[in-house]
Amino acid sequence: MNVAIARSRQSWIADQLDRLAEYGRDGAGGMTRLAYSVEDLQAQHWFTEVCSLLELTVRRDGIGNLIARREGDDCTKPAVALGSHLDTVLNGGRFDGALGVVAALDVVRRLNENKVSTIHPLEVIVFAAEESTRFGVSTIGSKAIAGMLRKDEAFNWTDRTGQPFPDVLRSCNLDPEQLDRAVRAPDSLKAFLELHIEQGVSLEYANCQIGVVHAIAAPTRLKVRVIGQAGHSGTTVMHLRHDALTAAAEIVLAVERLALEERTFQSVGTVGVQDVKPGSPNTIPGLVEMVVEFRSINAEAKQALVAELIKVFAKISEMRGVHIEHQIASDESPVSLNSDVCAVLKDVCSAQGVSYLDMVSGAGHDAMNMAYVCPTGLLFVPCRHGVSHHPDEYACEEDILIGADVLYEAVLRLAGRKPQ
Amino acid sequence: MNVAIARSRQSWIADQLDRLAEYGRDGAGGMTRLAYSVEDLQAQHWFTEVCSLLELTVRRDGIGNLIARREGDDCTKPAVALGSHLDTVLNGGRFDGALGVVAALDVVRRLNENKVSTIHPLEVIVFAAEESTRFGVSTIGSKAIAGMLRKDEAFNWTDRTGQPFPDVLRSCNLDPEQLDRAVRAPDSLKAFLELHIEQGVSLEYANCQIGVVHAIAAPTRLKVRVIGQAGHSGTTVMHLRHDALTAAAEIVLAVERLALEERTFQSVGTVGVQDVKPGSPNTIPGLVEMVVEFRSINAEAKQALVAELIKVFAKISEMRGVHIEHQIASDESPVSLNSDVCAVLKDVCSAQGVSYLDMVSGAGHDAMNMAYVCPTGLLFVPCRHGVSHHPDEYACEEDILIGADVLYEAVLRLAGRKPQ
Repeated sequence: MNVAIARSRQSWIADQLDRLAEYGRDGAGGMTRLAYSVEDLQAQHWFTEVCSLLELTVRRDGIGNLIARREGDDCTKPAVALGSHLDTVLNGGRFDGALGVVAALDVVRRLNENKVSTIHPLEVIVFAAEESTRFGVSTIGSKAIAGMLRKDEAFNWTDRTGQPFPDVLRSCNLDPEQLDRAVRAPDSLKAFLELHIEQGVSLEYANCQIGVVHAIAAPTRLKVRVIGQAGHSGTTVMHLRHDALTAAAEIVLAVERLALEERTFQSVGTVGVQDVKPGSPNTIPGLVEMVVEFRSINAEAKQALVAELIKVFAKISEMRGVHIEHQIASDESPVSLNSDVCAVLKDVCSAQGVSYLDMVSGAGHDAMNMAYVCPTGLLFVPCRHGVSHHPDEYACEEDILIGADVLYEAVLRLAGRKPQ
Repeated sequence: MNVAIARSRQSWIADQLDRLAEYGRDGAGGMTRLAYSVEDLQAQHWFTEVCSLLELTVRRDGIGNLIARREGDDCTKPAVALGSHLDTVLNGGRFDGALGVVAALDVVRRLNENKVSTIHPLEVIVFAAEESTRFGVSTIGSKAIAGMLRKDEAFNWTDRTGQPFPDVLRSCNLDPEQLDRAVRAPDSLKAFLELHIEQGVSLEYANCQIGVVHAIAAPTRLKVRVIGQAGHSGTTVMHLRHDALTAAAEIVLAVERLALEERTFQSVGTVGVQDVKPGSPNTIPGLVEMVVEFRSINAEAKQALVAELIKVFAKISEMRGVHIEHQIASDESPVSLNSDVCAVLKDVCSAQGVSYLDMVSGAGHDAMNMAYVCPTGLLFVPCRHGVSHHPDEYACEEDILIGADVLYEAVLRLAGRKPQ
């Protein structure tokens, strides 16, 4: 019997992921469901249909988050919420976000099937616009719930095509003026749980089935412009050059060295964007524009990295006769997750004989903002070779099933099973 | 009287440069006359008009070079040729190439005005497609004259938009099958002279009015692909990364170091092109494509630089677990110019009281290929701050006038003045 249930449950999650993968399927083998796009709305429509089958009531808040509710025995008690997002990056994979939503729905499905009532109400949340792809800002929906969205800033955002954020909201029948009505009172939620693929290789390396995340690293990003002197590559002798790219190369290596040297918090540093101008084989680069990113679970360690890098800029400037400008493009705070919720998750793992890793998340998630609203936990399942934001993103059904089991049991413990 | 002549001559050159600057004037303050483009053909049309006024006969050869001829006293004697090119880079300046053509025409104009006949015929050549901007190959017209153009290779070239080279020739009413008819027999030319702006700062630093070039450095270019492993910048710890950009940064700095260390021939090394993919702030670069260039007047020194760099590739590959591919995209030979012609140019400078610098050219020119056909000389005039391939490219009229005087006198000496 047990095997049969496991199989049927497994295929329900797999079926739903298959269905979701149809929305925004792109020619390049992945899916593209940019926030608030037609494809994103199609996925949301799938969600409301499933909720209707599961007898959940669904509402949409001022920013476009979908909130499905299953009443508990005591409707005055704060809800236990769980969920993730349905939007994707360009040409993304089928698990990032989607798995967390499907796993949350699966908890409700199993409770229904097992005819279990909980004391606290449950909510399954689909957060709007988690990915930064469209507006350059991530986790918009959960920021709104946490009251971290400033209307005056949000009204100035534009998407990749120049469309203003308020117009995009209107195109989805949302009233931009109402976006702050998405804010949730802390006493309305008892806890929040998110299940997500790891998007890294730590679980694979540690050979663990579950990651219990106790802290989320946050990025600080610097836009850096290195201004040298363009010149003919043949006629400018080496010692008279002010090559913007050789200066930029020193910055790239300095970012790496500084991050490697910060061992205590395993901070990371990356240059992911570097544009070289004018970009001709026979012209010494006169301008390099780059984006430097540091991430850490410790805010002070991260600020120290930025400060060290700025000292490096000064040295390179002086040595090479180039001008280096920088601007802090974003500066987010690391978040510690709730230790009680972490303890529940670890207890469940232990009780179920599941190996887990006490770990940090290098990537931001909606859980990061929800941690400001209520006690929050974040569970990772392994994803193959850490590949994510890519059509090759993959999590095996066995791992997914273990994650869903842990989530189910943790929800029961947090929401309380109504005595029969 | 002398002053009046000087003024009138000066303004003829300036006038012609002004007229030329109209063809391909772009919105960014420079000019864009890509090889074989409408704008390039407009400039060629200007040339034939001026030639007609100067009573020169003009023919177009199989590759699109324009050759204007002024008969000498003995039409069986080989011609003394002079000239340069009219095509430009994207958003280039008004002197590169154009000055050499206008100065050559000015020699004829003065000979006409002074009613001077020469013993040897004269030719003014406008070389086709000197700049590599359109097809990635430079000095196409002079290569054809020197018999250095391989039809099978040329037929495979495509321009920036993918248009095949033969189709481009056809669009200019040129028959691709006839391109090798551009080859000139060495005995048809007695000498070739090119006047050009320096495109460097050596004359400015040495405070000299003329550069007499005795050797031209030639580039070897490598296309390099650094293949690492893309990954999420937050979730991939530093010591498990295979970042293509940090590896590329080491290559950039190695190119610089190797060139600086080769002091004997003042070789130079440049990375002018570097594309970083996928190019997202939160993704570790998985692929960097770059173009490395070395230039030297000594072929062995240059080959040694390439060999050293390839050793560096191996070290970086091993240290960083990335894959580095390279391909020699072009490998040109340095050229020594004719010492007799150099001696004539220096003699003229001395006789006219003009300060000159015996120098090498770091940039390639049509003279580089013409040196394989006949005794060749290359004259530089200073250009402000070495700025070239840029709208700010500038040579002052006084320097231009001195260059034109030296060119005029050198032509007279090489072609022989017919006794009156």
